[in-house]
Amino acid sequence: MFDIISFIERKRDGGAHSGEDIREFVSAFASGVVPDYQASAWLMAVYHSGLKGEELKEFTLALARSGQILSFGDLRIVDKHSTGGVGDKVTLLLVPLAAACGVKVAKLSGPGLGFTGGTVDKLEAIPGFQTHLSSERFADQVRRIGCAISGHSADLAPAEGKFYALRDVTGTVPSLPLICSSIVSKKIAGGADAFVFDVKCGGGAFMEDYESAEKLARALVSLSKALGKESMALITDMDQPLGEWIGNSTEVLEAVSVLRGEGPKDVEEIVINLAGAMVSIDSDLSFDEGCDLARKKLDDGSGLETFRAMIRAQGGDERICTRPEDVLPLAGKKKVIAAPGECVVRSVNARKIGEGVKRLGGGRMSLGESIDLSVGARILKKNGASVREGEALLEILYNDEGKLADALPYFESACTFDHAVAPSDAGAQRKLILGRVG
Amino acid sequence: MFDIISFIERKRDGGAHSGEDIREFVSAFASGVVPDYQASAWLMAVYHSGLKGEELKEFTLALARSGQILSFGDLRIVDKHSTGGVGDKVTLLLVPLAAACGVKVAKLSGPGLGFTGGTVDKLEAIPGFQTHLSSERFADQVRRIGCAISGHSADLAPAEGKFYALRDVTGTVPSLPLICSSIVSKKIAGGADAFVFDVKCGGGAFMEDYESAEKLARALVSLSKALGKESMALITDMDQPLGEWIGNSTEVLEAVSVLRGEGPKDVEEIVINLAGAMVSIDSDLSFDEGCDLARKKLDDGSGLETFRAMIRAQGGDERICTRPEDVLPLAGKKKVIAAPGECVVRSVNARKIGEGVKRLGGGRMSLGESIDLSVGARILKKNGASVREGEALLEILYNDEGKLADALPYFESACTFDHAVAPSDAGAQRKLILGRVG
Repeated sequence: MFDIISFIERKRDGGAHSGEDIREFVSAFASGVVPDYQASAWLMAVYHSGLKGEELKEFTLALARSGQILSFGDLRIVDKHSTGGVGDKVTLLLVPLAAACGVKVAKLSGPGLGFTGGTVDKLEAIPGFQTHLSSERFADQVRRIGCAISGHSADLAPAEGKFYALRDVTGTVPSLPLICSSIVSKKIAGGADAFVFDVKCGGGAFMEDYESAEKLARALVSLSKALGKESMALITDMDQPLGEWIGNSTEVLEAVSVLRGEGPKDVEEIVINLAGAMVSIDSDLSFDEGCDLARKKLDDGSGLETFRAMIRAQGGDERICTRPEDVLPLAGKKKVIAAPGECVVRSVNARKIGEGVKRLGGGRMSLGESIDLSVGARILKKNGASVREGEALLEILYNDEGKLADALPYFESACTFDHAVAPSDAGAQRKLILGRVG
Repeated sequence: MFDIISFIERKRDGGAHSGEDIREFVSAFASGVVPDYQASAWLMAVYHSGLKGEELKEFTLALARSGQILSFGDLRIVDKHSTGGVGDKVTLLLVPLAAACGVKVAKLSGPGLGFTGGTVDKLEAIPGFQTHLSSERFADQVRRIGCAISGHSADLAPAEGKFYALRDVTGTVPSLPLICSSIVSKKIAGGADAFVFDVKCGGGAFMEDYESAEKLARALVSLSKALGKESMALITDMDQPLGEWIGNSTEVLEAVSVLRGEGPKDVEEIVINLAGAMVSIDSDLSFDEGCDLARKKLDDGSGLETFRAMIRAQGGDERICTRPEDVLPLAGKKKVIAAPGECVVRSVNARKIGEGVKRLGGGRMSLGESIDLSVGARILKKNGASVREGEALLEILYNDEGKLADALPYFESACTFDHAVAPSDAGAQRKLILGRVG
C-alpha cells in the first residue's frame, strides 16, 4: 500500500522516488485520496530538495496521463510554449506563420491570470471566433489548413491543474522541476511531437534575470529529450513589453499589423525567430534557414493568408485581416501620460503596465472573472527614447473613470527617466534574442 | 492584512518572521482562516529553514496563548517533561517524591500514542482515581499536599494540538524548533514557573543518539530562558526500557515498589536525579544537594506518603500503597520468551517491546481508542546478562490469544545475543544519566 507519510519524508530528506511511487502519489492526489495538506508539504519538500532525472520524467508523464491525451494520428505536431509576459501577442501570429512554413501547429491555450494576458482572451475579441473546438474539429482543422488555436478543456492534464492551484497558494510556484513538469506535461497531453519554448527574461516576465531564464531553458530542453521529444528553447527579452500595445483587442490589432508588414519590428523579430525554430526542429533546415523561410512567408503575405484561413475556419470575422479597427471592440475614452520634462526614458516597467491594464478591466484576478476586451495601453516611447516635456509616453484606452483611477498609479510610475540631455542609443541596440538552447 | 502566501515564501527563502506575523498566523490557523494545506507548506519550510531566537519565542508564546493559561497565584510551580519512551513510569513517582522535597508540582499529562504509554493511562489503572481535575481542584490540591497529576483539557494550547496533528501526517514531526515550541508551549499554558526536561536517548526514545538528544536539551533550556523560565535538562539513557515492566497496571505496580524501596535501581536512580534537578531549580540547593534530599525523602518513606496523599485526594484506592496486586487489574494469562541457547544478552529493543504491548491491547494507534490496562511485559534479563538455554527473558501478561499472536513477533525479536561464554559486565556499568544542561 502507498504510504504518503514515508513518501513525504523521503523527499524531505533529499531522497529520490521510484516511478511507481510517483504514479501512485499523482493518482492518489488527483482522486482526492491524498489531501491537499500532504501534497503541499511534499511540494515544499520538492522546492528544497528538487526532482531529478527519472523522477522528474515520471512525474511529468503521470501529470500528462491524468486526463485525455490528444492524438493527431500520422500528423507530426509542433507546439510552442511561452513562459508568458506582458503584451505577449506572439502566439496569435506565430501559429499561422509557422503553418505557412509547412509546420503543423495545434495550439492549446489557457486563459490569462495575474498580470499577463491569455491568448484565448485575446482571440475572443474577434467577433464570431470560436475559442473552444472539439478535439475532432481541432485535429481536422490542423490537417486541412495547418493550424488551429483552441482553449483547452479541464481534462487536459487535470492533475497538473490541481497541483498548480495548490502551488499558487502555498509559495511553491518558483521551483524549477515543478515549473518544467507543469509546462511539459500539458504539451504532452496536447499531443505534440516537438516543442519550441520561448523563455521570457526580464522585468515583465517570470524569470527576471538571464541566468535563471537560461537554467529554465536548459531544464525544459533536457526534460523534453528525456521524454523522447525534440525541442529548442529561445531566451527572449521581456525587460519592456513586446510591441506597443497591451490589452486584448489592441494586441490582436497589433498582431494583424505585423502580419501585414506594418507592425513593430521587435514583435516581427521574435516571431520570425520562433517560427524559424519550429521549422528547424521539424525539417532538415538549420535554425538560420528556418528563420529565412519564415521571413519570406511573412513578406509574401502567406502568414496573413494562413491567419485569414484560421479565422475563417474558426467562425471569426475575416474583415479582421483588412479593417481590424472596424470589427474589434475598442474603448472610447483616451488618456495620455506625458513626460515630466526633457529627458531620456531609462526603463518601461512591463509588469506595471500589465497591472494597470488589468485594473482597467482588461485582465482577471481569479479564474472565471469576466474581462473588458476593449481596454488597453499603448507604449509610445520605449527604453532609450529622448522626450520633451509634455510629450506623450503612454496612451490609455478605457471605459470606466473609477477603474482608470485605480489603474493610473501603475501607469504613472511605469517609466523611469535619466535627465541626460544627449539622447542615448540604448533603444536602437536592444537585443531581443538573448540565447538559444537545443 | 495578513498575507499568508508571503509569510510562507519568507520562511521558504530562509527569512525570519516578525512577532506580529507569527501571532497573526497562529491565530488564523487556530481559527481555520488559514487552511491546513498552507500551514503544512509552512511547516515543511520550517523543517528546512528553522525558527530562530525571537521567532521561536513568539511562536511558542502564540501557541501557549491560543487557549486558557492556568494560574496558581503566588505558588511557584515546577513542572517536568519527559520526551517519552517505553516503560517510562517516572512521572508516577517523581511527582510525589519532588513534592515530598518541598517542590510544588502541578503535572498535566496527555494520553499515550504510538509505542510509548501515557501517564494518564497508567493512573487510570488505579480504581477510583480521577484523572481529570477541574482547574480549581487541581490548584487547591497542589496548595494542600504539594502535587497533583491530571489529564489536560483540549483547551490547553489548542493551536499546538492542531499543529501537532498536522505535523504527524505531513512528515514534519522531527524539527527541533517545532519540537521545542510544542513542549514548552504546553508547559507555559500549564502555568509552570520552572521546568525540568528529561530528554530520553537511545533505541526506545525519539532521539536515538546522544548528539541529537543533547541538541534538543540545549534548545529546550535556551527557549525556556528566552521566555524567562528557569530550567534544567537531563539526558537519560533509553537504550533499554527503564525498570522491568511495560504496560499500564504493571508500571503502577513497579512505581509503588520503587517508592517502597523495593524496585529496580535504574528507575530509582533516574527519579532521584530528576527530583534533585527540580529541587535545585526551585531552591538554593545545588543539583547534588537536591539529589541527596530526594534520596533521603525516598528512604524515609516521605515519597510513598505523599503518593498516598495524592491518591487519596484524587479518589483512588489507597491500598495501592500496601497491596497493589490486590487492587490493580492484571491479565490472567502468562507467556514466557526463553533464551535460544547459552549466551549473553547484547541488547533489549525497548521500541519492539512497546510495540508488542500495544498489540496486546495495552496502547493505542489513534486517539480515542480504548485500551486494556491489565496487559504488560516484564523484562527479566537486561543488556549484558548471561543466560542459559531455556531461561526466561521476557514474561508476558495477556488476555487474548489472537492479540498475543500479533504481538509475539515483536517480543521474539526484541533481544539480540552474543554467543560469548564469558559473562560481560556491561549491564553493571550501565550509565543512566548521560548528560545535564542548564
